[in-house]
Amino acid sequence: MTSTPADRPSAPADLIITGCTVLVHDDQERIGFAEDAAIVVRDGAVVSVTPASDARDLPALERIDARGQVALPGLINCHTHSPMVALRGIAEDLPVGEWFNDHVWPIESNLTARDVELGARLACAEMIRAGVTCFADHYFSMEAVASAVADCGLRAHLGEAFFSSQGAQGRRTSLEFALRHRGTAGGRITTALAPHAPYTVGDTDLAATAELAREHGLPVHIHAAENLEQTETSLARYGRTPVEILETAGLLDTDLLIAHGTGILERDLTVLERADGRVAVATAPRGYLKFAWPTTTPVRALGAIGVPVGLATDGAASNNSLDVWESMALTSLAQKSAEGDPRWLTSRQALHHATLQSARAVGLGDRIGRIAPGHRADIVLVDLTGPHTQPVHDLAATLVHSVRASDVSTTIVDGCVLMRDRELLTVDVSATVGELTRRLPALVDRGHGGRIQEYDT
Amino acid sequence: MTSTPADRPSAPADLIITGCTVLVHDDQERIGFAEDAAIVVRDGAVVSVTPASDARDLPALERIDARGQVALPGLINCHTHSPMVALRGIAEDLPVGEWFNDHVWPIESNLTARDVELGARLACAEMIRAGVTCFADHYFSMEAVASAVADCGLRAHLGEAFFSSQGAQGRRTSLEFALRHRGTAGGRITTALAPHAPYTVGDTDLAATAELAREHGLPVHIHAAENLEQTETSLARYGRTPVEILETAGLLDTDLLIAHGTGILERDLTVLERADGRVAVATAPRGYLKFAWPTTTPVRALGAIGVPVGLATDGAASNNSLDVWESMALTSLAQKSAEGDPRWLTSRQALHHATLQSARAVGLGDRIGRIAPGHRADIVLVDLTGPHTQPVHDLAATLVHSVRASDVSTTIVDGCVLMRDRELLTVDVSATVGELTRRLPALVDRGHGGRIQEYDT
Repeated sequence: MTSTPADRPSAPADLIITGCTVLVHDDQERIGFAEDAAIVVRDGAVVSVTPASDARDLPALERIDARGQVALPGLINCHTHSPMVALRGIAEDLPVGEWFNDHVWPIESNLTARDVELGARLACAEMIRAGVTCFADHYFSMEAVASAVADCGLRAHLGEAFFSSQGAQGRRTSLEFALRHRGTAGGRITTALAPHAPYTVGDTDLAATAELAREHGLPVHIHAAENLEQTETSLARYGRTPVEILETAGLLDTDLLIAHGTGILERDLTVLERADGRVAVATAPRGYLKFAWPTTTPVRALGAIGVPVGLATDGAASNNSLDVWESMALTSLAQKSAEGDPRWLTSRQALHHATLQSARAVGLGDRIGRIAPGHRADIVLVDLTGPHTQPVHDLAATLVHSVRASDVSTTIVDGCVLMRDRELLTVDVSATVGELTRRLPALVDRGHGGRIQEYDT
Repeated sequence: MTSTPADRPSAPADLIITGCTVLVHDDQERIGFAEDAAIVVRDGAVVSVTPASDARDLPALERIDARGQVALPGLINCHTHSPMVALRGIAEDLPVGEWFNDHVWPIESNLTARDVELGARLACAEMIRAGVTCFADHYFSMEAVASAVADCGLRAHLGEAFFSSQGAQGRRTSLEFALRHRGTAGGRITTALAPHAPYTVGDTDLAATAELAREHGLPVHIHAAENLEQTETSLARYGRTPVEILETAGLLDTDLLIAHGTGILERDLTVLERADGRVAVATAPRGYLKFAWPTTTPVRALGAIGVPVGLATDGAASNNSLDVWESMALTSLAQKSAEGDPRWLTSRQALHHATLQSARAVGLGDRIGRIAPGHRADIVLVDLTGPHTQPVHDLAATLVHSVRASDVSTTIVDGCVLMRDRELLTVDVSATVGELTRRLPALVDRGHGGRIQEYDT
C-alpha cells in the first residue's frame, strides 16, 4: 500500500476504483497483491493505492465498484503491426519465406491509408477488449494508425517502417512521422524510427538512422535476429551477426527495441551487455512455434545481462490474434520448455515481464507498467468469477495460466474508461468490419505479381 | 449438405438450429463448411443438415437463430481428472516428481466424495462454457462424478482409477463402477476400467484388467509413457517400454485409451501398429511444456500407423484449465515446432483431431464427433462477431487459432441446451464454488505427511 499527501485534497478525484485486489510492485520489484484496496485517479494519473475503507468517503466524479475483481497495470503489446488484422488467416501453415514472398509482401503493395486505418481501428478494438492499454506498432501509413489511436483512447508507441529499397525517402518519412506525432493524442502517442530489419535496410541506412535517433532524441524499433537462419545467413554473408551489425551502425547507443531475437547467439550477449543505449527485446512466442523456428527468444540469458524482455503478439497475419494474455502464458510455457526447467519463468516472473519489463521495452518505464502514485492510470479489471478461474490458490498462477483475455471486464487508459463491463465505448466494430470487408478483395489481390520487398534470408 | 427422408416427417422437430455455418465432414473425412444451413434435431440426434431455406417452414418445438455463428461438433476432452479443478494453481512451476509427491498425492489422500462431486460440478460448468460436450475422466470416487454428469447434462466416459497398492480391491472397485454406470444418464455415460499407469500398477494387475475388459466388453483408460524419463526408467528396470508392458499384459487387445504418450519410442510404433484392439492416444500439450518435458506426443508418427490422437487438457492442477480450445491450438503449435515443419498439423488437421479422432479416442466414433444424420446432437455454436475473429479469410484457421473458448455462445448435448447465449443452465457455479472453498483448508492440508502413492520414476 502506498499513499501520498495528495490523496486527501479538497477537490474530488476523477475516478476511484474500489474494493478490488491490486497488483502492486514493492521496491525490489517483487509482485504483490493489495487486497480490498482502492485506486484513486486524478488528471489521468494514479494518486494513491489505499485500503478500500480509506477511500470510502473520498469525493469522486466517478466510482467503479470492482469487488471480486483484480486490478492490473494494462497489458503492453511491445511489438505488433496492428493493421495486419486485416490479413488474419490469409497465409497459414507456411515457412516464413513463402509467407512473406507469396502472400504478405505482395498484398502489402496494395495497401492504402484507408485499409491501414480500418485495420488499426479493428486492432484497437481487439486490444481494448483483451486488456491491452499500450502497443508498439511498426507499419506503413502510420498517420492512419495515429488517427485510430487518437480516437480510440489507447496509448501507443508508433514507428513508420522503411526499407533501403525506398531510398533515402523511406528514412525521411519515418523521421517526419516520428517528429510530427511525438507527444500527440494528449501525450498518449510516443514515436520511434522504424527501419525494418538488418536484412532489408543496409548498413549505411542503419548508421544514418542511429545518427537521426541521437540528433532528435528518438528511440528505434527494428526487427533483428528474428530467427536462427537469419543469423546464420548474416554470418555467412557479412561475417557478423545481426546484433553485431546493429552495434557497428551505432544503433546500440540508442534506445533500441529489437523484435523477436530468437536468433540471438551467445556472442551477441556480450555485445548487448556493453550497449550504451537502453536496449530491449520483444518476444512473441506464438509465431515462433507456428513458423516452426528451432529456437525462441533467449529470455533467461537476456535477463542475466539486464536486457528487459517485453511481451508481444507480432501481427495477426502470423499470430492470428493480438492477445497479449496468450503471449504471457506462452512465454512462460515456451521458456520452461526451451530451458528444460519447470521452475524457470514462474507466474510472478511472467507478470514482471508483462508489467515493468514491457513498460521499459517501449521506453515508458517511468510512466506505465505499475499501479503506483505518479504513474499513468492505465488499468485493467479482471473478473475472477468464471468457473475456469476458481478456486484461487495462487493468484499469480491464476492470472497467467487460467485467466483469458475475455475475463477483462474494464479497460482504462489515462484514467478514461475505454471498455466497461465488456462494452467497448470508443470503437464501432461492426461499421469497421463492414467497410474493411468491402475493401478486402482489392487488398488481398496477388494477381499483379509485385511485392514491396523480397525475403531472401 | 446431407439429408434423409426423416427430415420431413409430420411430427415437429425437437430443435432446429438455423442460419449458421456448419462444420461437416465428407466421405473422405475432409472438413468442409456448409453455409446458411439448418440442423434439424429429434430425439437427441441430428436428423438432417439442410440449407436454411429448406428448414424455414418445418415445425419445431424450439428454434435457435444462429445467424453469424458457426456450428461445430462439441469438443471432446479425451483425458482429464475433472475434480482436480479444486487444486487449480496449488502446485506451480515444479518438476512432475515434486508435483506428485509433495503436493498432489498428499492432498489426494484427504479427498472425500463431496470434494470430488463439487470439483466435478465446477469442472462441468467450465467445460460447458468452453464448448466441451464430452469428457473422459480418470479419478477417484467416480460415483460422485457420475452424479455431477447426470445433473449437468454433459456426456462423459468415466473410469475409477486404481493402483496396485490398493490390492485387488482397487481393480474390483473400478470394475463395479464401470458395470454399474455403463449406459446411465440416458446413455450419456460410458465407462472404462482405469488402471493408473504401468509404473503404479503391476504386470499381474494389468493382465487381470485386460482379462476383465475382454470378459465384460469394457474399454481401458490408462496413463502410459507419459514422458521420456518414464520410458527410460522402464527400459532400465524391466528391459521393456511402457507400451511393450501394455502389450505383454494383453491390454493392446482391448479398446485402449492411452494418456499422453510423449515417451512413445519408435520401437513402440511397431507394437501399436500390430495391436488387435482399438488403441488411441490423448494429447494434452500444455502440461508437457509446463513440466518442461523434452518431447511431445508423436502425433505424426501415430497418425501414420492409424492411431487416432484425441485432444485433452489433463487435470487443472497441472494444466490450469479444462480449455480444449487451447489444447487444439497448442497441439497445432507444439506439433509444428516438434516436427520443425510449419506445413504440418494445419488447422483442418487440428479440427480432424478435435472431431473424428477425439470421438474415436473415447470409443464413440459412431455417435459423436460430427454433425451428421444419426449422430447425437452434441453441438456448439461459436460467435464470430468479436473483433479478434474478424475478418475471416480461412474459417478453419479462425476456429483453431483466433477463436477462444469464450466465443462459444451455446452448448448442446443430446439436443438439450446446457448453455444459451453464455448463460449456464444446469450448474450453479456460485453455490458450488462457495461450498468447495469452505472445504479447501481440509482438502489441501499436507501436514499429515502421507500420500496415496509414490512417484519414483
